[in-house]
Amino acid sequence: MSIATTEHTVRAFDAELHALTRMMSELGGHAESQIIWAVDALVKRDLDRGKRVVRADAGLDHLQCEIEQRAIELIATRQPMAVDLREIIAILRIVRELERVGDLAKNIGKRVAALGSTHLPRQPLRGLMHMSTLAAHQLKDALDSHAARDSRKAMNVWRSDEEVDSLYTSLFRELLTYIMEDPGIVVSGLHLLFCAKNLERVGDHATNIAESVYYLVEGRSLGDERPKVDPLAAVAFTLGTPSTAPVG
Amino acid sequence: MSIATTEHTVRAFDAELHALTRMMSELGGHAESQIIWAVDALVKRDLDRGKRVVRADAGLDHLQCEIEQRAIELIATRQPMAVDLREIIAILRIVRELERVGDLAKNIGKRVAALGSTHLPRQPLRGLMHMSTLAAHQLKDALDSHAARDSRKAMNVWRSDEEVDSLYTSLFRELLTYIMEDPGIVVSGLHLLFCAKNLERVGDHATNIAESVYYLVEGRSLGDERPKVDPLAAVAFTLGTPSTAPVG
Repeated sequence: MSIATTEHTVRAFDAELHALTRMMSELGGHAESQIIWAVDALVKRDLDRGKRVVRADAGLDHLQCEIEQRAIELIATRQPMAVDLREIIAILRIVRELERVGDLAKNIGKRVAALGSTHLPRQPLRGLMHMSTLAAHQLKDALDSHAARDSRKAMNVWRSDEEVDSLYTSLFRELLTYIMEDPGIVVSGLHLLFCAKNLERVGDHATNIAESVYYLVEGRSLGDERPKVDPLAAVAFTLGTPSTAPVG
Repeated sequence: MSIATTEHTVRAFDAELHALTRMMSELGGHAESQIIWAVDALVKRDLDRGKRVVRADAGLDHLQCEIEQRAIELIATRQPMAVDLREIIAILRIVRELERVGDLAKNIGKRVAALGSTHLPRQPLRGLMHMSTLAAHQLKDALDSHAARDSRKAMNVWRSDEEVDSLYTSLFRELLTYIMEDPGIVVSGLHLLFCAKNLERVGDHATNIAESVYYLVEGRSLGDERPKVDPLAAVAFTLGTPSTAPVG
């Protein structure tokens, strides 16, 4: 291969990698918004917005598919080595996580219609708003750490998932109290509980993205497992049942 | 490259792909067993077995990492094109799903200790056993469809996820009835409910594997989204609350 051809190949590869990264950022932005809008629709009992969130998920799926296809084509046609290959693998991993975040937002969006106009206690709704803001923030930080190739920032995202978990735990306990006090609220309480669980999982996906970024930058895995909590275990302790072990 | 070199390269690639496929089958076998053992431990209140399931998950994580590393190395060193590349991408996707199945089994395993010796109603435990057998079966069929490059079998797995969903729905309703009748059972009822949800997600992972196999064999996606149910929506309908829309 002549030097000119090689340079052309490198430029073409970089341009395509750049395009993929831009598409991934776009997908990330959509995923963040979907989480925020879904919970907003739930809190404001805005059925139309809930439906829009549900419908918009197809766009995220489509974008993820397109990125995957182009990434695979890029590997096949340009045959990147070492670092370049790692770049593409990171994109493939990250867009999968983002697509799953989209699914979780869609699931929350569906619950807006399922809850209809049932009365919901205000306090846990506020908790859900708080969780959604934090989870979307984690997601943004994880993607920023990718853009900046900042493994320390990625590690911070990974570590601060505990905050989302701790919010989840307190919200879970709150909802459980409502459910136990008023059996009439069991169904709507469980809907909110599943929403909280979904947001906790958004935090996990942000963490998975952070792990991929860390691997991309440092060439090795973060290794240790994050400590996980199970709110049920904590609650069981309060109630005096035998369960005290953390589950998660 | 001489013909001899090319032949050597092809043979080396095939041998490594074969090794990766064998490792993936091994991981799949472990994931299936973990699901079965976790629920078995839960039903028999076997704390030791529950702990063993939790501990064994590290082995699955390790194996998944090793497969990923070797797959990436194989792409980097052998620079496979088209079909060969698709083979490796399929393996990368499938082992990620299997690793997540392992996480779900571990989560169930942890609940064995959390539940301690609390009395549990026998009927839902039987339901969980049934669900775990079906979900492990789905997983096996999905992996068999990969081994046989059988896109029809893959599509069957994809379609029959409805069975797991339907089992989940009835188990969910049953547990909800227990919870509403006896507030003292809320915590253990929710533990079982989360176990059921985990098994439903195992079914989803089997479906994702089937989708990857379909793509590998047919070169195009299965496209349509599977219909998903939310047991809460159904229950809410029974209870006369406004929610009738399916959520999932």
